[in-house]
Amino acid sequence: MGKGYNGKILRVDLTEEKTWIEEPGEEIYRTYLGGAGLAAYYIIKELPKGVDPLSPDNMLVLACSVITGTPVPGASRFTAAAKSPLTGAYGEAEAGGWWGPELKWAGFDAIIIKGKASKPVYLWIKDGEVEIRDAGKIWGMETGDSQDAIKEELDEEKVRILQIGPGGEKMVRYACLINELKHANGRTGMGAVMGSKNLKAIAVRGTNKIEMDDKESAREVIRWLRENYTWQTGDMHDMGTARLTPSLSENGILPTRNFREGAFEKAYDISGEKMKDTILVKRGTCYACSVACKREVEVNEGPYTVNRKYGGPEYETVASLGSLCGIGDLAAVSKGNELCNRYTLDTISTGVSIAFAMECYENGLLTKEDTGGIDLRFGNADAMVKMVEMIGKREGLGNLLAEGVRIAAQKIGNGAEKYAVHVKGEEVPMHEPRGKRSLVLAYSLSPTGADHMEAPHDVVYEMFNSEGQHPLAPMGLVEPVDTMEMGPQKVRAFYYAKQLFDFYNCIGMCDFVGVPIGPLAINQVVKHIEAVTGWNTSLWELLKAGERSNVMMRIFNFREGLTKEDDKLPDRLHQELESGALEGERIEEDKFEEMKKTYYRMAGWDDDGYPTEAKLEELGLEWIEEFV
Amino acid sequence: MGKGYNGKILRVDLTEEKTWIEEPGEEIYRTYLGGAGLAAYYIIKELPKGVDPLSPDNMLVLACSVITGTPVPGASRFTAAAKSPLTGAYGEAEAGGWWGPELKWAGFDAIIIKGKASKPVYLWIKDGEVEIRDAGKIWGMETGDSQDAIKEELDEEKVRILQIGPGGEKMVRYACLINELKHANGRTGMGAVMGSKNLKAIAVRGTNKIEMDDKESAREVIRWLRENYTWQTGDMHDMGTARLTPSLSENGILPTRNFREGAFEKAYDISGEKMKDTILVKRGTCYACSVACKREVEVNEGPYTVNRKYGGPEYETVASLGSLCGIGDLAAVSKGNELCNRYTLDTISTGVSIAFAMECYENGLLTKEDTGGIDLRFGNADAMVKMVEMIGKREGLGNLLAEGVRIAAQKIGNGAEKYAVHVKGEEVPMHEPRGKRSLVLAYSLSPTGADHMEAPHDVVYEMFNSEGQHPLAPMGLVEPVDTMEMGPQKVRAFYYAKQLFDFYNCIGMCDFVGVPIGPLAINQVVKHIEAVTGWNTSLWELLKAGERSNVMMRIFNFREGLTKEDDKLPDRLHQELESGALEGERIEEDKFEEMKKTYYRMAGWDDDGYPTEAKLEELGLEWIEEFV
Repeated sequence: MGKGYNGKILRVDLTEEKTWIEEPGEEIYRTYLGGAGLAAYYIIKELPKGVDPLSPDNMLVLACSVITGTPVPGASRFTAAAKSPLTGAYGEAEAGGWWGPELKWAGFDAIIIKGKASKPVYLWIKDGEVEIRDAGKIWGMETGDSQDAIKEELDEEKVRILQIGPGGEKMVRYACLINELKHANGRTGMGAVMGSKNLKAIAVRGTNKIEMDDKESAREVIRWLRENYTWQTGDMHDMGTARLTPSLSENGILPTRNFREGAFEKAYDISGEKMKDTILVKRGTCYACSVACKREVEVNEGPYTVNRKYGGPEYETVASLGSLCGIGDLAAVSKGNELCNRYTLDTISTGVSIAFAMECYENGLLTKEDTGGIDLRFGNADAMVKMVEMIGKREGLGNLLAEGVRIAAQKIGNGAEKYAVHVKGEEVPMHEPRGKRSLVLAYSLSPTGADHMEAPHDVVYEMFNSEGQHPLAPMGLVEPVDTMEMGPQKVRAFYYAKQLFDFYNCIGMCDFVGVPIGPLAINQVVKHIEAVTGWNTSLWELLKAGERSNVMMRIFNFREGLTKEDDKLPDRLHQELESGALEGERIEEDKFEEMKKTYYRMAGWDDDGYPTEAKLEELGLEWIEEFV
Repeated sequence: MGKGYNGKILRVDLTEEKTWIEEPGEEIYRTYLGGAGLAAYYIIKELPKGVDPLSPDNMLVLACSVITGTPVPGASRFTAAAKSPLTGAYGEAEAGGWWGPELKWAGFDAIIIKGKASKPVYLWIKDGEVEIRDAGKIWGMETGDSQDAIKEELDEEKVRILQIGPGGEKMVRYACLINELKHANGRTGMGAVMGSKNLKAIAVRGTNKIEMDDKESAREVIRWLRENYTWQTGDMHDMGTARLTPSLSENGILPTRNFREGAFEKAYDISGEKMKDTILVKRGTCYACSVACKREVEVNEGPYTVNRKYGGPEYETVASLGSLCGIGDLAAVSKGNELCNRYTLDTISTGVSIAFAMECYENGLLTKEDTGGIDLRFGNADAMVKMVEMIGKREGLGNLLAEGVRIAAQKIGNGAEKYAVHVKGEEVPMHEPRGKRSLVLAYSLSPTGADHMEAPHDVVYEMFNSEGQHPLAPMGLVEPVDTMEMGPQKVRAFYYAKQLFDFYNCIGMCDFVGVPIGPLAINQVVKHIEAVTGWNTSLWELLKAGERSNVMMRIFNFREGLTKEDDKLPDRLHQELESGALEGERIEEDKFEEMKKTYYRMAGWDDDGYPTEAKLEELGLEWIEEFV
């Protein structure tokens, strides 16, 4: 078919304490690419219907892609996927860093883990060799300690470790996986799944670089991406993902006090600029990236001391632990971030859960008795930091909040659900649909629930880059679409861009590199895939792979009992914003329904939101009907 | 949006004797590209509903594309489009040669002609200047004579002339346009439309080469296409399009004796090889082509003398005037071809009409009284040649056959319709759906009726080229699909390939170059479009443009009163082949209906075959609803 891409998949059965290696063949890689697509393929085929996500029957897939480990900027991400304990639906999250590339250099494209170890274990993978090792001594450790312990035990300084902390062990429903202490597969509770399997960590060391079909062509792509890094002339490197916090607030789209408001009076205090000017000690990067947006922060005095080895807060974190909780104290937010990384908690779900609890508390649905004496008001930084720790340890109210806002609200009762800002059980991230209307579809339709990594924000459709070209021009999206637009033009832009982002999740491409770095970036990514694999492919074929992955996940969800009724938004987003430039804006139900209806039809889904037989056939997914 | 492609459109109102120039702006070119897409855009917007195709109210669009006139192999084709007098539906045909490039060099991307001249005229276009000139003296001339007369009158040896002969003047419903006496916009009667407007010819001379955005990149494409011309190691150049006639017959898919049979005992006698060994005097080419498949044949003795200036017969012609009429005499076939080019008759419709008449005659529905004494049996070469002439002059039975088989059958009555092999009134071309099953969809769904230029034959899906890659690999079609297959996999291959061919018709790319020349040809075409226009585009965007053009034509047809009931095949194709390797094969009605149903849904059409609102929105065609 092509010129010969193939890859190995490591199979792990923890119950049987067995590992083996499979080669699925080139056709599988060409059809599903890797990452999100490859994971979805195996999960829908091999995960029995209706399993408890925290039982040994669940499976965890960790998947790189055909280009992971090649030195192209932005392609360091790998996918973790399983049935989600947070949503009961498809669970998936990507993470950057070095672990994905290292896994490829160790000889594997993916790891598929089933069963449950009889006692805590970790995996040790080195250049094609695999060992299941006892983790009795490190179980219970925070991530920093366990990383040190594993490195010492293996006597390998260069080992890369993907792991869970106490939050994952205790199966906090939104526990994340973390690699190198600071790169998280954040959403949908993949850490809880790993914890449920008694699997503490996966340590990897690989020394075999990737063979590329056309090295010169790959070099051209890499050179181009490095030279054309134009994202706001380096602001992303300079100030990190939190660089825009103040302007988001000015524009009324900084989620504040549990999404009641869109502007935060202390937005600057939690901004990338403030961070840079105060606690930033180093700028970090994922493997081979030309953007290098990661932070390392350090605080040595005051109430919140912060250790730099856990990195620094992303935008999602400064907003979720900051503005969303009404907190403008960067040290407190950074401390919360550090604790999330120590315990392996998703910072978004953690922040939204705390903000939810704050609103419950202020409205009398939770009392000091419930909080263990904490005055859980918006703006109370001490309370926020304490709650992060309690969630990580499942202590007191933290044990309730560790279930996520959907379950917590059910347990609290008395109408608490109206403060629970989630879709399908997943807490809404820090991008405001009332001011960026494509997110209405992104959140309601994502198989994983409200997910910020599932489709680009409206700003991408709006943006003309420095060379005067729309960044999505290769897809025919050559005109801006207003952020507030909800008509067919917006649906179309979303439908196309969704395929692009799904494709990027299949190849592990970071959208900070793959979309806005320059007007030709998308085509450079295509060229790189050709250079690595030797395939004669095109954006056409690759976007179809993206669509394919999304459709597999959607069908998985329907199989697990979800329906179109789950394609909804939380009440909060249908209510008016109470402050800021967009005060009074809400998502009108009728416009939302119309938008969804248009999307269903555009996507080839029937009126129940189910992909039609013809759509499955178009995507070459006829086989899936056997597994539903 | 891009880096600045724009082009001029020449407007001609023959009634008012006025011409003017428009610049529609880059957005129109980027959305519709040119050729079939640009023509459809103007026709659905500007042609009033329900007009008589032969009235002054019809419009004729001649459209090049954004790459026509650049020296890339295969891109010399331009589109002629109008409401078809043959089908009453959308009419369109492409032609290669030099006229299209010359029009671009003269400064125009397209000509839109409305109204009717009060007396015969022709257009003279030279480097941006336009003149409507009297054609009184040349009206009535055969094409060779009128070409000489115009060149002499203009005193321009290098002028390129697109014109009609007596067949167009007399509005034979399948009259073609011809340029340089041998390159035809063959199908759907565009010559009759030109004749109905009293427009004899369009003479063009242009001396301004096309400015390309990135000359070096264009040069790379051109070099690549020239170096990688691998189509059966040059058979196409050596033996022309008729090279496969014997093997088609062996495989049972050479239309023979009005589609009753699939094998012809004299297939070799009308083959490209025989032509090469006997009457071929020169190999010709379209502008800048690396394939050069055109023929010049000459016969100086015997009953059929043939003048080389009218070229030589294509495969379509050797089959339609040959095997389909049971005739294995290459000189007679070549004479018929010459006459078609003199009179401007579509050779396919001409041959099918004659074969139809032969079957009527053999079955007693036509008599010697009707034929004027001609013994109109299959295999009678004299009768065939005579009938071509009579059709061109609309004499005797020729006047009836000039209406096409659908109308002729109605007029003959007595069940003649069962011998009339057409779709939507357009005669079926020389590719056998009973042995190449994607043609079942190609013929039944094409807006123009049974058209061989609307989608690739199954052989393309089947083919692995010399480098072991599927030629449609960039579209994800990486595995062969059996020619006889009618299941979803075939529908998908057809659906994708249809978009490719529609895209090629928008940019004037010949499928002999753009598809099989090598495994990377499709991507080279994309690269060339980028090089010429400066756009940052992709196969994704360009295939959407292809789909857009097809959808516009389909909506035009529905507006003009067609329904899904017109998506049918002639009875003959549901009957068993009576000879050859596929004897007994027929198109089963139920499989056909199932295939269509799958296609409708895959294409985003509703159960009535009408593109859904969401599909229109996806393609950016919301505006069209105003014009239906």
